[in-house]
Amino acid sequence: MTKRGVFIGRFQPFHKGHLNVVERILSEMEELIIVIGSSQISHRITDPFTAGERILMIKTALKKAGIEMSRCWIIPVPDVNIHKLWVSQIINYVPGFIRVYSNEPLTCRLFIEEGFEVDPAPFYEREIYSATEVRNRIFNGENWEELVPESVSQIIKDIDGIERMRALIKTDKRSI
Amino acid sequence: MTKRGVFIGRFQPFHKGHLNVVERILSEMEELIIVIGSSQISHRITDPFTAGERILMIKTALKKAGIEMSRCWIIPVPDVNIHKLWVSQIINYVPGFIRVYSNEPLTCRLFIEEGFEVDPAPFYEREIYSATEVRNRIFNGENWEELVPESVSQIIKDIDGIERMRALIKTDKRSI
Amino acid sequence: MTKRGVFIGRFQPFHKGHLNVVERILSEMEELIIVIGSSQISHRITDPFTAGERILMIKTALKKAGIEMSRCWIIPVPDVNIHKLWVSQIINYVPGFIRVYSNEPLTCRLFIEEGFEVDPAPFYEREIYSATEVRNRIFNGENWEELVPESVSQIIKDIDGIERMRALIKTDKRSI
Amino acid sequence: MTKRGVFIGRFQPFHKGHLNVVERILSEMEELIIVIGSSQISHRITDPFTAGERILMIKTALKKAGIEMSRCWIIPVPDVNIHKLWVSQIINYVPGFIRVYSNEPLTCRLFIEEGFEVDPAPFYEREIYSATEVRNRIFNGENWEELVPESVSQIIKDIDGIERMRALIKTDKRSI
Amino acid sequence: MTKRGVFIGRFQPFHKGHLNVVERILSEMEELIIVIGSSQISHRITDPFTAGERILMIKTALKKAGIEMSRCWIIPVPDVNIHKLWVSQIINYVPGFIRVYSNEPLTCRLFIEEGFEVDPAPFYEREIYSATEVRNRIFNGENWEELVPESVSQIIKDIDGIERMRALIKTDKRSI
Amino acid sequence: MTKRGVFIGRFQPFHKGHLNVVERILSEMEELIIVIGSSQISHRITDPFTAGERILMIKTALKKAGIEMSRCWIIPVPDVNIHKLWVSQIINYVPGFIRVYSNEPLTCRLFIEEGFEVDPAPFYEREIYSATEVRNRIFNGENWEELVPESVSQIIKDIDGIERMRALIKTDKRSI
Repeated sequence: MTKRGVFIGRFQPFHKGHLNVVERILSEMEELIIVIGSSQISHRITDPFTAGERILMIKTALKKAGIEMSRCWIIPVPDVNIHKLWVSQIINYVPGFIRVYSNEPLTCRLFIEEGFEVDPAPFYEREIYSATEVRNRIFNGENWEELVPESVSQIIKDIDGIERMRALIKTDKRSI
Repeated sequence: MTKRGVFIGRFQPFHKGHLNVVERILSEMEELIIVIGSSQISHRITDPFTAGERILMIKTALKKAGIEMSRCWIIPVPDVNIHKLWVSQIINYVPGFIRVYSNEPLTCRLFIEEGFEVDPAPFYEREIYSATEVRNRIFNGENWEELVPESVSQIIKDIDGIERMRALIKTDKRSI
Repeated sequence: MTKRGVFIGRFQPFHKGHLNVVERILSEMEELIIVIGSSQISHRITDPFTAGERILMIKTALKKAGIEMSRCWIIPVPDVNIHKLWVSQIINYVPGFIRVYSNEPLTCRLFIEEGFEVDPAPFYEREIYSATEVRNRIFNGENWEELVPESVSQIIKDIDGIERMRALIKTDKRSI
Repeated sequence: MTKRGVFIGRFQPFHKGHLNVVERILSEMEELIIVIGSSQISHRITDPFTAGERILMIKTALKKAGIEMSRCWIIPVPDVNIHKLWVSQIINYVPGFIRVYSNEPLTCRLFIEEGFEVDPAPFYEREIYSATEVRNRIFNGENWEELVPESVSQIIKDIDGIERMRALIKTDKRSI
Repeated sequence: MTKRGVFIGRFQPFHKGHLNVVERILSEMEELIIVIGSSQISHRITDPFTAGERILMIKTALKKAGIEMSRCWIIPVPDVNIHKLWVSQIINYVPGFIRVYSNEPLTCRLFIEEGFEVDPAPFYEREIYSATEVRNRIFNGENWEELVPESVSQIIKDIDGIERMRALIKTDKRSI
Repeated sequence: MTKRGVFIGRFQPFHKGHLNVVERILSEMEELIIVIGSSQISHRITDPFTAGERILMIKTALKKAGIEMSRCWIIPVPDVNIHKLWVSQIINYVPGFIRVYSNEPLTCRLFIEEGFEVDPAPFYEREIYSATEVRNRIFNGENWEELVPESVSQIIKDIDGIERMRALIKTDKRSI
């Protein structure tokens, strides 16, 4: 079987830390499967972008970075909300793989409990390159563009993403 | 087509600020559709009342206010939990309309993204006339009756709503 | 409490047999609640119309028939898919009632098991005035208009319903 | 009918306070039904254990305490997420009963609204014997074993539960 | 670990063929887990009984047959509707097991694909002892009691099950 | 915006008729999005393969056919079960597109009702090149390999797909 690694995240949005992990996995594996988790969710303060928007961001960023697309899979996977089924849900949606990369502790734990080989996928300069940091900088009007590939910041602007996030933060300030 | 406006809220409970918006919409439109959002939810601290109870409150209040019922529609709509589908969900449940009224920023944003005409439906004296304020006054034993139409306060008492809300607040104080 | 009867059906579409039952209930009860069941379903061969379209058909037909709208409630209720919860689901969505009218045997049975008073709501000339008969005549290009109130046939034409139903029947002929 | 009491909880995990209530109910009733609520949930900080693990803990603890298993039922019941349907959901899953025991205020309230006899099931030394306290002590590396039956602490260790809970707490510290 | 076998079925209703399998498994294993599949479903022509009713039937029948209850687990498990997750769903709900017994080909296949040891659990005189046969005899007014343990036929009569099934068959004859 | 066409199907399995449509769309559009509908479903007689298996089949077949992968997107989309939301669901999951290709009449109808440009995507020799025909030939032990790309038949054999389908047909012969 082809030696594949699966990289699981929500990519809200895809940033340079993610790109760094992608490149490392491709140096270790023949192929890479990027699983876009919580694919059904968007328009939330911690999850502003749709699956379609995230797929577009990732594919565009990989192409621009010169990554060979024929070695990559980008697959959105919806939540099942029953954590114990999460591993099977991913297996349901993707081709066979031999190693899991994720920096989400629960995802790591669930795969470990099922006996998989798990790599915690640490980001280079984790406290800066994180999606939470990107979203916070957008909310605060700070320089978020430096944290993401240029194609990602372009797409966020094209889809009027900053305006959307401002509406979301107003919602969260109220009683929801 | 009949010129209809749709007013979207959770109405937990329906208060005088809502009634004020209803009257304004009826002065601008031929007909008004009131969408009771999150219709499946009740018995939560931010959402104490069932759809059936909310429909009863609204219809009774409109009648008492002398509003022509044949120009009004009151329609409960359950959440879909996938925000991107919320606009289609509402279209699924209601007759055709030409303008959306809501003071919930996410709802406004979603309709704007789909190209609808949106009115933010500001309440008269927003900081007082809000459902959050009504619920807080009930929890604190303050004068909440002055914020809602008399028929609404009567129904809340008839269904033993104060007692229910006291049980809910005890739940929320614990680990749920 | 107001003496209310609840009439439960799918109303795909609302026909003269339904109207006949509505008039009978209003002669027995102070108020009538029409529950539009399976409200979330549309675009199926047995369920072609959306909740919004069905609400529009029913309200228009009642008005044309000179029925006092202030005595009527028209409330869409989505399925729960767990039959044992169906009675609670309806109670969740509607104001209090004292009798149930339905010609769907399962609905009748579920309410009987919960101790409600149930009227099987027989239609006048049941074999002709049935929604199945209306849909079959549409599929076969026969005279279906005579079975429904004029306002209903007008709405079906306005929303291009005949064309929709033709697409549905093609789908059902295949492997779905 | 057999005189049965139903004891509703999440049992995350089952502790000595629960065991105390079980013994009291069995002194009042012929049979006891233990409902494991939120049965579908696990691997969350407030709900670390699966239904299967919780059933195992409870049955083992009851046996060790010398309780007659033929008088007991242990039944997992998944959430419906529509609170108004919760009472029917439990009726759906268990044999007939005449009294409800629970120290969860919302569950008590829902059964009271449906006309059931409800016992608030107070624990002996509530502030110590609580599942929240057990979980907190595990997170803080304090003595949690003294709060649970010995068989429960053994099972938690066998399934590597401490390690799992440490992964969960790391997840909760981030933006989920 | 305790040597457990899991017996998966819908038990609509539990009949003598099932009892026969139960006894065989208990002769091969230390403990038996009976999984009541499709636990959320009832009031359908192929699934007339609720989980609560089925649990009651099975426990009563096992007791009457002199089976040691402390060696048995009876656990209702709701469907997930995503077949690929069915194996994980069962693992989620039950204590550890080493062999699967089922005469449902899809269930067998799913466990085989996950690498489990599967026993097809053939019934003694399969064409007679089947739940389909029991239900058909009830619908046709034939002798169904001889196919089920006496305690099961007693419970079906106590809950007015025959009347319920007659209502269901009328529903199925119509357009549902 | 890039000129994209979206091709919607279930691809159970992907056959030469599909490949033919793919080539036609790529001659008309800059990019092609293949939507794998009902992505959550597998192990059913009409839907034997998982999303992961179908993605693998399609990508492998396109590569073998010499199609430029950088112009293609393969995106699994789960059902929403509320037909009226299906168009929004697809928009949620994919990058922007200007034309829809599908030979499923309901999908075509839903997009037409939302104002999209729809191409019915007729297959070359439809009565032979259909997924139903492929599955029937597999069930009947006839020559199905000639209907699918060689890489697809290889994958079906690798995953033991024939054996799985035989188990499914036995299930369907019974009361499910």
